[in-house]
Amino acid sequence: MNYLDFIRQYANHPNYKAPRGNKLHARSWQTEAPLRMLLNNLDKEVAEDPANLIVYGGTGQAARDPEAVKKIIKILLELDNNHSLLVQSGKPVGIVRTHEEAPRVLIANSNLVPKWADWEYFNRLKERGLIMYGQMTAGSWIYIGSQGILQGTYETFVACGKKYFDGDLSGKLLVTGGLGGMGGAQPLAATLAGATFLGIDVDPERIKKRLDTKYLDIMTESYEEAVNIVMKAKEEKKAISVGLVGNAADVLEKLLADGIIPDIVTDQTSAHDPVNGYVPSGMSLEEAIDLRKSDPKKYRELAIKTIARHVRAMLEMQKRGSIVFDYGNNIREFAKEGGVENSFDFNGFVPEFIRPLFCEGKGPFRWVALSGDPEDIFETDRALMEAFPENKHMVRWLQEAQKKVAFQGLPSRICWLGLGEREKAGLIFNELVKSGKVKAPIVIGRDHLDCGSVASPNRETEGMKDGSDAISDWPLLNLMSNTAGGATWVSFHHGGGVGIGYSQHAGMVILVDGTERAERCIKRVLFNDPAMGIYRHADAGYEEAIGVGNRFGILKDILE
Amino acid sequence: MNYLDFIRQYANHPNYKAPRGNKLHARSWQTEAPLRMLLNNLDKEVAEDPANLIVYGGTGQAARDPEAVKKIIKILLELDNNHSLLVQSGKPVGIVRTHEEAPRVLIANSNLVPKWADWEYFNRLKERGLIMYGQMTAGSWIYIGSQGILQGTYETFVACGKKYFDGDLSGKLLVTGGLGGMGGAQPLAATLAGATFLGIDVDPERIKKRLDTKYLDIMTESYEEAVNIVMKAKEEKKAISVGLVGNAADVLEKLLADGIIPDIVTDQTSAHDPVNGYVPSGMSLEEAIDLRKSDPKKYRELAIKTIARHVRAMLEMQKRGSIVFDYGNNIREFAKEGGVENSFDFNGFVPEFIRPLFCEGKGPFRWVALSGDPEDIFETDRALMEAFPENKHMVRWLQEAQKKVAFQGLPSRICWLGLGEREKAGLIFNELVKSGKVKAPIVIGRDHLDCGSVASPNRETEGMKDGSDAISDWPLLNLMSNTAGGATWVSFHHGGGVGIGYSQHAGMVILVDGTERAERCIKRVLFNDPAMGIYRHADAGYEEAIGVGNRFGILKDILE
Ligand SMILES: NC(=O)c1ccc[n+]([C@@H]2O[C@H](COP(=O)([O-])OP(=O)(O)OC[C@H]3O[C@@H](n4cnc5c(N)ncnc54)[C@H](O)[C@@H]3O)[C@@H](O)[C@H]2O)c1
Ligand SMILES: NC(=O)c1ccc[n+]([C@@H]2O[C@H](COP(=O)([O-])OP(=O)(O)OC[C@H]3O[C@@H](n4cnc5c(N)ncnc54)[C@H](O)[C@@H]3O)[C@@H](O)[C@H]2O)c1
Repeated sequence: MNYLDFIRQYANHPNYKAPRGNKLHARSWQTEAPLRMLLNNLDKEVAEDPANLIVYGGTGQAARDPEAVKKIIKILLELDNNHSLLVQSGKPVGIVRTHEEAPRVLIANSNLVPKWADWEYFNRLKERGLIMYGQMTAGSWIYIGSQGILQGTYETFVACGKKYFDGDLSGKLLVTGGLGGMGGAQPLAATLAGATFLGIDVDPERIKKRLDTKYLDIMTESYEEAVNIVMKAKEEKKAISVGLVGNAADVLEKLLADGIIPDIVTDQTSAHDPVNGYVPSGMSLEEAIDLRKSDPKKYRELAIKTIARHVRAMLEMQKRGSIVFDYGNNIREFAKEGGVENSFDFNGFVPEFIRPLFCEGKGPFRWVALSGDPEDIFETDRALMEAFPENKHMVRWLQEAQKKVAFQGLPSRICWLGLGEREKAGLIFNELVKSGKVKAPIVIGRDHLDCGSVASPNRETEGMKDGSDAISDWPLLNLMSNTAGGATWVSFHHGGGVGIGYSQHAGMVILVDGTERAERCIKRVLFNDPAMGIYRHADAGYEEAIGVGNRFGILKDILE
Repeated sequence: MNYLDFIRQYANHPNYKAPRGNKLHARSWQTEAPLRMLLNNLDKEVAEDPANLIVYGGTGQAARDPEAVKKIIKILLELDNNHSLLVQSGKPVGIVRTHEEAPRVLIANSNLVPKWADWEYFNRLKERGLIMYGQMTAGSWIYIGSQGILQGTYETFVACGKKYFDGDLSGKLLVTGGLGGMGGAQPLAATLAGATFLGIDVDPERIKKRLDTKYLDIMTESYEEAVNIVMKAKEEKKAISVGLVGNAADVLEKLLADGIIPDIVTDQTSAHDPVNGYVPSGMSLEEAIDLRKSDPKKYRELAIKTIARHVRAMLEMQKRGSIVFDYGNNIREFAKEGGVENSFDFNGFVPEFIRPLFCEGKGPFRWVALSGDPEDIFETDRALMEAFPENKHMVRWLQEAQKKVAFQGLPSRICWLGLGEREKAGLIFNELVKSGKVKAPIVIGRDHLDCGSVASPNRETEGMKDGSDAISDWPLLNLMSNTAGGATWVSFHHGGGVGIGYSQHAGMVILVDGTERAERCIKRVLFNDPAMGIYRHADAGYEEAIGVGNRFGILKDILE
């Protein structure tokens, strides 16, 4: 297809959309795949704000600007398999000579030399058009809508239930803030896990979106109504979810004043970005948007103040018996800045619930059917259930997901798998593509939040056993290993999740096109990628990781 | 050879030494090469302090600890060409599945999440054995002794002569501090460039080492003697070099007091590390070493005070007519911390002299004869002079180098080459190995200080045209590109040159073993690597880089 026709059909705002079917527009699936996934990230079914190329997580973008999107598309339509495109903070900046089993796209987003790595400096560069915030999967073209985070959130809530409520969340009230791109998965994850749910968001549009996608049951603007519904549901042990329009700090304080102490409290407002994410108390959303532009300094001050109140309320609930945890938005750090000395008195969700999974190489494995046909995903679901019948937890998840998860954009699935399992799943999918049982190639990727791909001392690497939280050699080794192994695109970002200055992390996506080339790459990449988690946690002294590593025979030259 | 015999013969402190000859100890040259280069970095002819595995640049190490050295050796002796070794801050932490045209070793050194990236935090991690400072070529196994920096320093002094002294440095006095691993190249570079030279170092052992290797003509402990010799030489326009034992801050102040204003003033003390590098005034070297251990905080305070005096003296000399420039040790930053508000009033050497070279993709290309036979290097010299007869500057450099540069460790050569030239040189060397004209394979590498491999706002990327100094997407893209292209080992470091917090940079070394595999890798890596410099500088708006890029046809999809 002619480049201009292609742009008209697929890359015309507000109608960004990945092509469907098994006809190639690019020269091979190796370039067609990143092309479709970039467009899928921008699809209005998927992205939070496609007009500004924002996909999720505050200001996480897929590309620098519309010009950059077009150039990337043009290059991907023409690129052969002996070259690779370089993307610098969402803008194409070069093409290098590579080979068939090397990545087709090499991406670096939002990276700053440490001494200069804060939001203020970043935003100045951004205003000058020199940089972009890539979050995790936004700038690396493997965001798949709220469903992406759904299983992770579900696993977290289930783990919380196991750890603190004898495995039973029925009749338990979970209260949280933020129903945005990621946070929007919370209501469905909570009800799937059996809990009663109250979520607070200042932006009614965001809440409405969750209603539309069936992630949320009820929306209201009335505090009283919300409280009545959830208190009744709690009593009746009904897994119901309510979205309340309001400021999370205000609502938590009101609940405290009314003596309502939830069983579980957490938060997924965009607190990681106190200027362009978190909304201060005492103003409408419109006023907030205006102030952001007219006086970002003032805005930041107010946001920090509200964050401090917000966290104080969470701490008070903890004191009165709630299970409280930070859900990866760095809210404790900014509360500390706002004067809450003991803001780190509640734990992050990773050391609380996720690290044991990381020690098995488990993480947010996900895949997308490039055909656009939901049947292809169901085919992969079936194949997985057949291949891992002993993994009851996974089988149940896949069944539930088929029933309750609405696809957004290209059909996709997420399912946390560990070392060995990921490689096996990749090879199975490759056979499905080869045999024609699925109609077009699949891509497999993951969040940057994974066992061996991120350094983020306030989140993924909080409280590591050996104190190595801040050492970021690990995500860099992950990047090199996936580049060397032949992922189809790789990425390295800074500031995802917790904001500029606080994290560094690597992403990868691999094409499954039924070829022998793909088979070779899968055997390398989908083994190595979770193995990095084993190496990282074994080095830090986690017995579980050492056990898994020994079982796979990959630690003998390393530990001895 | 048996592993234990190998260790006894080559890795026994203080006799670390690369094997010579063309007999393999590892399973292929792809692993033999990094093995030899690691050991060569630790060779006492090469390393500043092999007892502590310190190679150069303050505390720049080749490996975490002796245990790690041995493990790396053991793994490299056994590794096949379908796997790669992971090195995390000088320690082997894993082995991943890769392939014949992927790097055999993947290295990440000293990397910290930005918010935690300062010396204090770093040193605490270091004390706990969790991290290592890799400098640039120390931790990436391609340091080749003072000769490595020699041409760079020579090019800088020559460029300074061209810019400020009508191309004639005879009768000009150049004064500098620091005659350590890198700084030790200054006297020879200065006299090669025709200048009279006075270098100040607190450590007589360091100065003696320069005498031994013929980089320096005269050593003295007497200020009066030193001044008499250089003032006389200046008058007689004699290119003579004097090394004076003393503290640079003290000596510069004395010179000012005596009304001696040098023509050129710079500095290469280890100011980038105010605790383990720079020595405060008013104490002997031994006292300094004691204080470092007993009270690092106090030490740091004193060092910062001396640095402030040191830079004030440099600024005063500038005022009185000297050409003054920062030589990449971040001394201005720490002087600012010490209260010298206008410390950045003199420029860094990169914007002053080096950036025009970077805009042609030129940088510190270097190669090493793994045979250990100097004749192999002379053979490569000859081949280059034949292949680039029009490059008179290069031909003269190679002739001078043959006469005046003593090899340290494995024979090697450095020669700044640009885009196109590097690939061509690599292919020529591959033919020399194939035909047996050189007796064993060669490795080609470079400093991390190169056109497209580093973000360092106080040094390599100081004052970029578009203000993108601190954006470190570029060295990451360089890393990915060299990993994808098939360099033989790649590395990503933090804090090289200017210290923890201030830089991020990528290294690469490629094996030239006369095979078709090497030819393919050379065509990719040695083209892409300098092309990154073109992309980086073209994106920042440098016309020269755009010109070169257009000449090579690599910007058409990017700029249009
Ligand atoms: N735990 C995880 O696995 C994980 C994963 C990704 C992101 N995160 C973090 O979670 C946060 C949310 O991510 P997202 O993608 O949903 O971001 P988003 O920007 O799409 O959504 C944030 C939501 O918070 C709302 N909000 C802002 N301030 C508020 C306030 N004071 N009271 C109530 N609502 C408020 C906004 O209206 C918005 O709907 C981010 O900080 C992100 O980094 C966590
Ligand atoms: N410009 C470049 O291309 C370049 C390249 C590499 C390194 N550097 C920087 O140059 C500096 C020196 O590197 P190196 O490898 O030579 O380090 P080094 O540690 O080997 O040598 C530093 C020398 O400075 C001396 N010294 C310390 N304090 C002193 C003082 N107050 N007065 C006099 N002498 C003093 C030490 O005795 C030592 O000999 C480092 O900061 C390094 O990062 C620059």
